[in-house]
Amino acid sequence: MKRNIKLLLSYDGTSYNGWQKQGNTDKTIQGKLEEILSSMTQEEIQIHGSGRTDAGVHAKGQVANFLTNSDLLLEEIVSYMRKNLPEDIWVEKAEEVPISFHARRSAAGKCYSYHIWYRQEPPIFERKYVYAPGGKLDINKMKEAAAFLIGKHDFQSFSSDKKAEKTSQREIFDISVEKVGNEIIVYYNGEGFLYHMVRILSGTLIEVGLGKRKPESIKTLLTEKNRENAGFTAPPQGLFLEEVKY
Amino acid sequence: MKRNIKLLLSYDGTSYNGWQKQGNTDKTIQGKLEEILSSMTQEEIQIHGSGRTDAGVHAKGQVANFLTNSDLLLEEIVSYMRKNLPEDIWVEKAEEVPISFHARRSAAGKCYSYHIWYRQEPPIFERKYVYAPGGKLDINKMKEAAAFLIGKHDFQSFSSDKKAEKTSQREIFDISVEKVGNEIIVYYNGEGFLYHMVRILSGTLIEVGLGKRKPESIKTLLTEKNRENAGFTAPPQGLFLEEVKY
Repeated sequence: MKRNIKLLLSYDGTSYNGWQKQGNTDKTIQGKLEEILSSMTQEEIQIHGSGRTDAGVHAKGQVANFLTNSDLLLEEIVSYMRKNLPEDIWVEKAEEVPISFHARRSAAGKCYSYHIWYRQEPPIFERKYVYAPGGKLDINKMKEAAAFLIGKHDFQSFSSDKKAEKTSQREIFDISVEKVGNEIIVYYNGEGFLYHMVRILSGTLIEVGLGKRKPESIKTLLTEKNRENAGFTAPPQGLFLEEVKY
Repeated sequence: MKRNIKLLLSYDGTSYNGWQKQGNTDKTIQGKLEEILSSMTQEEIQIHGSGRTDAGVHAKGQVANFLTNSDLLLEEIVSYMRKNLPEDIWVEKAEEVPISFHARRSAAGKCYSYHIWYRQEPPIFERKYVYAPGGKLDINKMKEAAAFLIGKHDFQSFSSDKKAEKTSQREIFDISVEKVGNEIIVYYNGEGFLYHMVRILSGTLIEVGLGKRKPESIKTLLTEKNRENAGFTAPPQGLFLEEVKY
């Protein structure tokens, strides 16, 4: 009988070409997981992630699912995976879910964090997990700008996607900008995000923090729907997929 | 006129074969620094570190010095180095010191930290900077054991050095065992340390924490002077050279 298994995963994206499999030789998270699950079940497993993380992007709470005929216990699946996964991927748990569950299509919300280095000296030990803009950031201005983004908006200005999606309207439930240790961390909580959206939002907030644009400019960006006028795409290593909600 | 320049450095040791140059092709911190300083001064620069860190060991406050005839300003030296150093080495500052200053011979004390992962789940993002013993640690027992190590002792049981040093007597001023976030950090403050001494001390304290040996066993180790009976050499990635005192 077909079973649907949901996995909760974390990974350090540094040495991967992102989540999505691009061929047999590429080093991707999806590819690595399918390889291990296929050898475990002796089936050809296809895994569905809640979304594709770019090369270098990390995840603390990625969710994925796969269908299998195997009757392995959940503990056996977790233990086999932990034994065979490389040290930069970790499976937190496995659960059995209804056949209709799909990690991407069933998702009701996602939380991402973007990590910005706050000190003058560059990050030596943290460099794979933060972006260092190399200037002084005004955190209050960033908070002010973030407030304009909360709510239901057309985020076309903040997407690299050239109208591949049916609609570029999304709802952001909340954004918080926090100073934690040597970092400013921006948490994005929303129903879903367009391609590169969190990185472009972060790049735009960083430009606000650096004084290169005003917090109010966000309002214009939301109405004019032009990617050219928004901020740069902040680099992947600062981005973490924190949680997927169902 | 000869000048003596003292450098304060930090580095991520992950991708180096340690501090000490071993040949022209090896990737070492010393080799990298000498290469940059030689090209900067157009002299053949020899640099002296306060000590040799092993492959994979990190430094937050390594000190080194070199002699030069160059009349470059200190700011110019720092700025040239920052521009040319790879992203895993950072020069904090440069100062001019008396010709007699020698980073190793003039050192009066050193502080190291050893980072032990405290959670059940393995460290995904921190794995290059901690050691994960994979068991529950009793921090109070570790503190109890550490107390026996403080003071002037013959640390032969805790050294990989087969009597290359004249004496294996050293003074440890203080050891603190602290729970910080997901880690137990052991700070060692002493006049100097034998080869592998901090890693063997850490391995021994970890074995105490895991319940594999009693805190009191430290007393016996100090008197019997036999490396075989001390704990394992804890792996390099958990070790940081924090500070060198003069």
